[in-house]
Amino acid sequence: MKFSFKNDYSEGCHPRILQALAETNLMQQNGYGLDDYCLQAEDIIRKKINNKNAKIYFVSGGTQANLIVISAFLRPHESVIAAETGHIFTNETGAIEATGHKVHGVPTSDGKLTVNHIQEVLDHHQNKPHQLKQKLVYISNSTEVGTIYSKDELQRLSSFCREHNLFLFMDGARLGNALSAETNDVNLEDVARLCDAFYLGGTKNGALIGEAIVINNPALQEEFGFHMKQKGALLAKGRFLGIQFQELLKDELYFDLAKTANTQAMKIKKVFGEQGFHFLAETFTNQIFPILKNSEIEKLSRNFDFYVWKKIDAENSAIRLITSWATKDDVVEEFIREVKNLK
Amino acid sequence: MKFSFKNDYSEGCHPRILQALAETNLMQQNGYGLDDYCLQAEDIIRKKINNKNAKIYFVSGGTQANLIVISAFLRPHESVIAAETGHIFTNETGAIEATGHKVHGVPTSDGKLTVNHIQEVLDHHQNKPHQLKQKLVYISNSTEVGTIYSKDELQRLSSFCREHNLFLFMDGARLGNALSAETNDVNLEDVARLCDAFYLGGTKNGALIGEAIVINNPALQEEFGFHMKQKGALLAKGRFLGIQFQELLKDELYFDLAKTANTQAMKIKKVFGEQGFHFLAETFTNQIFPILKNSEIEKLSRNFDFYVWKKIDAENSAIRLITSWATKDDVVEEFIREVKNLK
Amino acid sequence: MKFSFKNDYSEGCHPRILQALAETNLMQQNGYGLDDYCLQAEDIIRKKINNKNAKIYFVSGGTQANLIVISAFLRPHESVIAAETGHIFTNETGAIEATGHKVHGVPTSDGKLTVNHIQEVLDHHQNKPHQLKQKLVYISNSTEVGTIYSKDELQRLSSFCREHNLFLFMDGARLGNALSAETNDVNLEDVARLCDAFYLGGTKNGALIGEAIVINNPALQEEFGFHMKQKGALLAKGRFLGIQFQELLKDELYFDLAKTANTQAMKIKKVFGEQGFHFLAETFTNQIFPILKNSEIEKLSRNFDFYVWKKIDAENSAIRLITSWATKDDVVEEFIREVKNLK
Amino acid sequence: MKFSFKNDYSEGCHPRILQALAETNLMQQNGYGLDDYCLQAEDIIRKKINNKNAKIYFVSGGTQANLIVISAFLRPHESVIAAETGHIFTNETGAIEATGHKVHGVPTSDGKLTVNHIQEVLDHHQNKPHQLKQKLVYISNSTEVGTIYSKDELQRLSSFCREHNLFLFMDGARLGNALSAETNDVNLEDVARLCDAFYLGGTKNGALIGEAIVINNPALQEEFGFHMKQKGALLAKGRFLGIQFQELLKDELYFDLAKTANTQAMKIKKVFGEQGFHFLAETFTNQIFPILKNSEIEKLSRNFDFYVWKKIDAENSAIRLITSWATKDDVVEEFIREVKNLK
Repeated sequence: MKFSFKNDYSEGCHPRILQALAETNLMQQNGYGLDDYCLQAEDIIRKKINNKNAKIYFVSGGTQANLIVISAFLRPHESVIAAETGHIFTNETGAIEATGHKVHGVPTSDGKLTVNHIQEVLDHHQNKPHQLKQKLVYISNSTEVGTIYSKDELQRLSSFCREHNLFLFMDGARLGNALSAETNDVNLEDVARLCDAFYLGGTKNGALIGEAIVINNPALQEEFGFHMKQKGALLAKGRFLGIQFQELLKDELYFDLAKTANTQAMKIKKVFGEQGFHFLAETFTNQIFPILKNSEIEKLSRNFDFYVWKKIDAENSAIRLITSWATKDDVVEEFIREVKNLK
Repeated sequence: MKFSFKNDYSEGCHPRILQALAETNLMQQNGYGLDDYCLQAEDIIRKKINNKNAKIYFVSGGTQANLIVISAFLRPHESVIAAETGHIFTNETGAIEATGHKVHGVPTSDGKLTVNHIQEVLDHHQNKPHQLKQKLVYISNSTEVGTIYSKDELQRLSSFCREHNLFLFMDGARLGNALSAETNDVNLEDVARLCDAFYLGGTKNGALIGEAIVINNPALQEEFGFHMKQKGALLAKGRFLGIQFQELLKDELYFDLAKTANTQAMKIKKVFGEQGFHFLAETFTNQIFPILKNSEIEKLSRNFDFYVWKKIDAENSAIRLITSWATKDDVVEEFIREVKNLK
Repeated sequence: MKFSFKNDYSEGCHPRILQALAETNLMQQNGYGLDDYCLQAEDIIRKKINNKNAKIYFVSGGTQANLIVISAFLRPHESVIAAETGHIFTNETGAIEATGHKVHGVPTSDGKLTVNHIQEVLDHHQNKPHQLKQKLVYISNSTEVGTIYSKDELQRLSSFCREHNLFLFMDGARLGNALSAETNDVNLEDVARLCDAFYLGGTKNGALIGEAIVINNPALQEEFGFHMKQKGALLAKGRFLGIQFQELLKDELYFDLAKTANTQAMKIKKVFGEQGFHFLAETFTNQIFPILKNSEIEKLSRNFDFYVWKKIDAENSAIRLITSWATKDDVVEEFIREVKNLK
Repeated sequence: MKFSFKNDYSEGCHPRILQALAETNLMQQNGYGLDDYCLQAEDIIRKKINNKNAKIYFVSGGTQANLIVISAFLRPHESVIAAETGHIFTNETGAIEATGHKVHGVPTSDGKLTVNHIQEVLDHHQNKPHQLKQKLVYISNSTEVGTIYSKDELQRLSSFCREHNLFLFMDGARLGNALSAETNDVNLEDVARLCDAFYLGGTKNGALIGEAIVINNPALQEEFGFHMKQKGALLAKGRFLGIQFQELLKDELYFDLAKTANTQAMKIKKVFGEQGFHFLAETFTNQIFPILKNSEIEKLSRNFDFYVWKKIDAENSAIRLITSWATKDDVVEEFIREVKNLK
């Protein structure tokens, strides 16, 4: 069986999580997120983001987090601005539109929204009430193409959104990878301070499943539980999510796992670079997009699984390689050997 | 800490599930339900229901199962018929209506729908197109008040629905308890043969989380995956659901767990009966509703947790006691001693 | 061709409306309700209700008015309380549910909601967030069974709603008939003072089409135009609605038309009463529901059209007779002759 | 008061419509589109399109027509492809998304979709079920920028859609103008043969309000009335729409009115051309987009109203001029004089 670099959710969970599940297994607890583990995990997150008034809600996946947050925050005539590469724009089967809200897609070079992008969408929707009222800006960090936002970029976005009465929401399915990247200058407290809401991804960073939605803006916290239940996200055994986030966050495990994933990807990137390959985008997280000849792709795919991401021309394509918290050194070394033998 | 009879999801999962998770943990697998464990669990279910053409989909909870099934099966002008006690009618925060569909609630004495109930709803909606077109009948087995359907009752419902071009959908959050009740004469194959779709509940029967949706009607199978994804239910690590159902169903574990829960409840019921207490409804599953004096309720609640379910009069109320796969003999015996001491 | 008492929208419009349309026909005007006629009609209504801050919006029909108002006012987890006879509950093809909101139906004896009815719904929905948050009370005046609210009844409802943070919305498809009934003690100013919003029906009272939505609660006025447009209700030639309401309301035409309809119905009711017939409900508007033998119904239906409303027993049924602004004296007299000849 | 070239719905209706309303005014008729006038108008349309099995439904406006057709035809996971200039994409306040469906916007040079545009959208949505299933192609004729489809273009679109299992729907708010353009080679029968559904616009072509939806594909005809009612479009006095379409279509009035509008626009276009002005797009219908210096725009706007459509550069902008069935020769001549005096 080939090793797969297809994604960061190919394995189960970090062993400490299994251990925590076993230790708590027969304790009776309240249902629906009112168990001790959820309450403790919430407290840990509030401390880490330095906002004792934040509200935290655990859900089972990223699409679910996105659709509940957005539909809870918006009124029927309000819409979302996102990059065209944004997960909600094209990879969630219209989940946001299914709740009644349009997503305005913006083409970007690197998956990152800027103040100019947003201003342009606003400028094109001045004919009220025949056009929608834009109300929420959706960004992903790290983005779907592996790039990250700098603190300065986030601050500009945040200021612009507050001036223009827009909510700023960060999809953090890979937030661990973003904040652990070598080029990163943002911390969790910054994220909480600059975004009205965001989520901390677990599924792609060592949990079995689970994302922790953090709502910082007090005006948006009210009655969020109703929306969770209505969309089928309020788990009877919410404890199962609480236990995982408690374990991941009670020390540095969450960021250690993300760092491991990033490190493995950067090792591979380095070798591609040394061998003279170019990349679709420069990334410092756990996703890399080297451009190879089709014959080289064929060679590499004999022993490894990965996605061919984008055709560049008749003879070259970019591939996508994703590493995870569980990617072992020996696998990376073996892959590197094959890369070195390509040319 | 008091022992709780409040519900059947107070504990974690059966230890065999934790073991199965541990054993498979580092195996790389495809995402989104295309892993080996989901495929195997689907095969097991198809064999158990004796329908090799059934399609099976795993989701994380019951409200999610209900809302996806119903919104996938119906066109915008089609509606649902359910008992007023039905979970979707009053306990899921309008999840079905949030997908655009009305639920017609029918008052019943025992939580069970009959052909007459359905006919009456149809009769009151003859003014087309000013009134909705009823298209799906929702039943729960066991019901929300602990009762179960006999094979004869299910056959009548099924025949009526087919004659009237209605889909029959069974909420099986506690299907294990229903099929393991001492008075039951229905098996899983009957359920599959008589219902267009149903789900096998895991959350309340020994899984950490998870329900297995089974679609028997070929016309309803098509493109169901889109609806799962759009509603946020397609887990990246679908393996986590597959592993659990594989473990629960590969032998008789699933039904053994349900039987244990039922048996513990019946022991308690027997003693209440012997002591001369009456019940809100006669049940043979893991829920019982004895009627007590308020002073008796107070006594029992010193050492045990449970819900006061319904006020009967100024001095008496029905309480709800729920047992689970994890309810131990010694707890039941201790509770029984207290019941015997009430009078 | 038989004369029809089936409804109050069998004829076109009052001739003064055709005349007003002709007179203004070639004047160029702004689109989308920003024309002179809409602006003037809005002013007239503001004066008549004595609320210079009310916002008025014209739409083409009652179902449209109901679904826009309700979906604009509510957040996704909020629901509506209505009588089971309420038009939105059973005669609008699930229009409200199609916007995502449940309608809780309350059985009533006379189509009228009371404070007790509402309290009971609230009492049954205390399990938050698993149950919906009730937020809007929908009443019709006159009701779908021809009855009307007294000032005292409206005041109680209004006070209760304000105390409980509920919006009170009145469907006024036949508000003219209600306010013109001989037993009525409510005026338009009362309605505006006591309801957060209501609409003044035109379609059933002499207009070609059109309903005037009046929003009194300032918190609900904001951005209503977006909802109108999104639901397809913002007419390019909004002038067409403005002209009609201007004509109906610039003097007493609107109430004169309603009074004519009521008077004709009361004449018929009187004769039925004198002949010893009973009624399904006692009404003082333009709908009456006498109970007849089936053979009598057959006789009457030789020369007149009407609906058989409700089977009473094997030999008797209630019929529904509706009169309109256009029901002529001679037709009424002829019908009365036939009634007198029944026994 | 300045004459307005802002749009084609600034005036009331053609006098023959007022006359028809007056003549039929006091005839009692069935409600909800079951009146004689609707039935006759439907027959006329079926004859004109040479499809005796077509179903026709009258609604009050274009946004309403679009949202009902699209939401009735699609299942929840199906989406729409439209030009970015398409009315539904940006000028209907998210009406389509509010029914749960995404609209994929395609940039075009002239407002017209081609087979290549559609193929490209399909190519970018191959990752099922994570991406939506495209199911309906929305085109406007004439387009929002005044251009029209040739018969050959429509045939290619139609064939492609049938091969790819896509519905083809034409927004015909200005279909009269399209089919009456001097460069047009399409007739109403072609439209009906090539599109699964389309609508014939009345509001912008001499009616007070009203659009006639025509459904040619038998699979899409079923139960359409439910959707009309649910979306608030089934008028009690449907007669009002039937009378208008009967009058417009019983002879050539509908096309005569469109031709008048086109002719007046073409006269103006000719003079702009003779004076050396360029156009944003070449159009042959009732919309023209000449490019003028800002100083020239200022001059023209002293006596005439119109929209400045698009900034070209610091000194030049395109304006939009729209004529209607009611635009008189003397106004056109006066405007032409001013154009001639510009330079």
